[in-house]
Amino acid sequence: MNITPKAVAELLLASDDILLLAHRSPDGDTLGSCFALYWALSEIGKRAYVRCADPFPDKYDYFLPEAMTTFPPKLIVTVDISDDQLLGGLREEYRGKIDLCIDHHQTNTDFARHRCLNSKMAATAQLVREILREMGVSISARVADCLFTGITTDTGCFRYSNTTADTHRTAAELIELGASAAEINRRMFELRTKGRVQVEKMVLGSLQYDFDGRVATVCISKDILERSGALEHELEGLSSIPRTIEGVLVGVTFSEREGGYKLSVRTGKELDASGICRRFGGGGHKRAAGCFISGDYQSACEQMHRVLGEILEGESTTK
Amino acid sequence: MNITPKAVAELLLASDDILLLAHRSPDGDTLGSCFALYWALSEIGKRAYVRCADPFPDKYDYFLPEAMTTFPPKLIVTVDISDDQLLGGLREEYRGKIDLCIDHHQTNTDFARHRCLNSKMAATAQLVREILREMGVSISARVADCLFTGITTDTGCFRYSNTTADTHRTAAELIELGASAAEINRRMFELRTKGRVQVEKMVLGSLQYDFDGRVATVCISKDILERSGALEHELEGLSSIPRTIEGVLVGVTFSEREGGYKLSVRTGKELDASGICRRFGGGGHKRAAGCFISGDYQSACEQMHRVLGEILEGESTTK
Repeated sequence: MNITPKAVAELLLASDDILLLAHRSPDGDTLGSCFALYWALSEIGKRAYVRCADPFPDKYDYFLPEAMTTFPPKLIVTVDISDDQLLGGLREEYRGKIDLCIDHHQTNTDFARHRCLNSKMAATAQLVREILREMGVSISARVADCLFTGITTDTGCFRYSNTTADTHRTAAELIELGASAAEINRRMFELRTKGRVQVEKMVLGSLQYDFDGRVATVCISKDILERSGALEHELEGLSSIPRTIEGVLVGVTFSEREGGYKLSVRTGKELDASGICRRFGGGGHKRAAGCFISGDYQSACEQMHRVLGEILEGESTTK
Repeated sequence: MNITPKAVAELLLASDDILLLAHRSPDGDTLGSCFALYWALSEIGKRAYVRCADPFPDKYDYFLPEAMTTFPPKLIVTVDISDDQLLGGLREEYRGKIDLCIDHHQTNTDFARHRCLNSKMAATAQLVREILREMGVSISARVADCLFTGITTDTGCFRYSNTTADTHRTAAELIELGASAAEINRRMFELRTKGRVQVEKMVLGSLQYDFDGRVATVCISKDILERSGALEHELEGLSSIPRTIEGVLVGVTFSEREGGYKLSVRTGKELDASGICRRFGGGGHKRAAGCFISGDYQSACEQMHRVLGEILEGESTTK
């Protein structure tokens, strides 16, 4: 059942012992949103804790608590999770038991008892800000840091097309509430670990153009992962690299997995990424989508190449 | 004489035949602010034109007029210029003749008859937005594009510490007025030419760490320039790469020149880049400085290495 931010506020105020679940391979929005709720709930005397199938990356340690006490939860809330698959290793434990889902993904599969979804918002953190407003709690600088982190990471520092006037207004408000905006942006967007730089260099080495430079492809192979020594979270954003190149209409990132390749497809306004990925049983947003192709690299490339050829050949001859 | 945005508005409304001057090596703020005024004045039937010592870069062509009619100006206005030196090749023609200076630089040298300065604003474009508000003119989508360009470029897409709550609020307003925010941000910050990607990949290939990862060095050799086919303007910002790596206190970029190497040194708050460069007869700012070392690459590296060793050995043993 869909519920409003106001109804979520009432539910949270009426509850205690709240478990907040972040999605696997956690990013700034799932963690920023979870911990904004964690701190806000803690500050009004409620027990809460956050769980995630994967460890919390160090880069977020400015808002992570030193320790959290666990307890048998009375309310289980997923935050920024569009499908319970994204619970990863926690799925078996919690599937079918989710009381509330707070999310902003259009593709949300409605897996919880209650759902608060706003797909017009750039980040789940914007929705959490709304919920906290409805709860009438005051926003501490720490909570503002969490929310700002969610918004700035999910908008690529206000760069992506999901950034609206409202996103900027929320950012303005969070800065006034004490969010360390410049420091957070430096940590999230400027500072790169040595592992990240190494993997980026190797991934750039795999860069390949097709269809007269309209398609750019990179591959994050297991070999690159091993040789670079990069950790999972150091791969964040790599899949947007091909699409940042002038003249490229479709950027494809192949990530080697067990039995095949996970593909991240990014497009400009000319083409529909989710349409491309649906051809392989995947999906996502118009400009950013994903799918899985089983088999070896060459075969996965050829299959994607064939689909892209069909799509692009309408406007010119394929290579 | 310092005047308010309101007084500037009155002056502009009472004037005609207005010349707007941008600074040399023009950036998004000087051009965005000039052309916001140009279009807004044109839209209310006033004659205006924009001049700059250097050509307008192509990347701003979404707000550049196809042609501008020149005329003997009755009001000469500098926009985003802190010192008349920055008029570059136009200085001789206009020095001492500037009627109005609109700027946001704290270092402004007060060279015009009237000055409207607000150094708390992140961009001159924010101040121009204020002036247009005082003029009571409606902001067209084209003017909003110009102003958004100024704000987003001068704040590094809302990333730098000069970004305030007001900066975000102005951005929100400009988006509502029709600024193509995502497209502008993509052009300014995301889009990289194929040559740029190629040279970046090769420069990353030259990356080397010293002193336990506290020093990172890259080299832009003539060989890399030739093999990548990158053009001069495609090298912009490459020298900041080493310093964006976690744990790096000093980032050094060696650029091969006739007879030696031009060095760009970038430091964090721990070390003084200009002090390092003075050791080689160079200089600059605390965080960004430069110098020249003659000889081959190995010798230039060794000399820099020796100086960095002396500076860093105070806090730990050198490698």
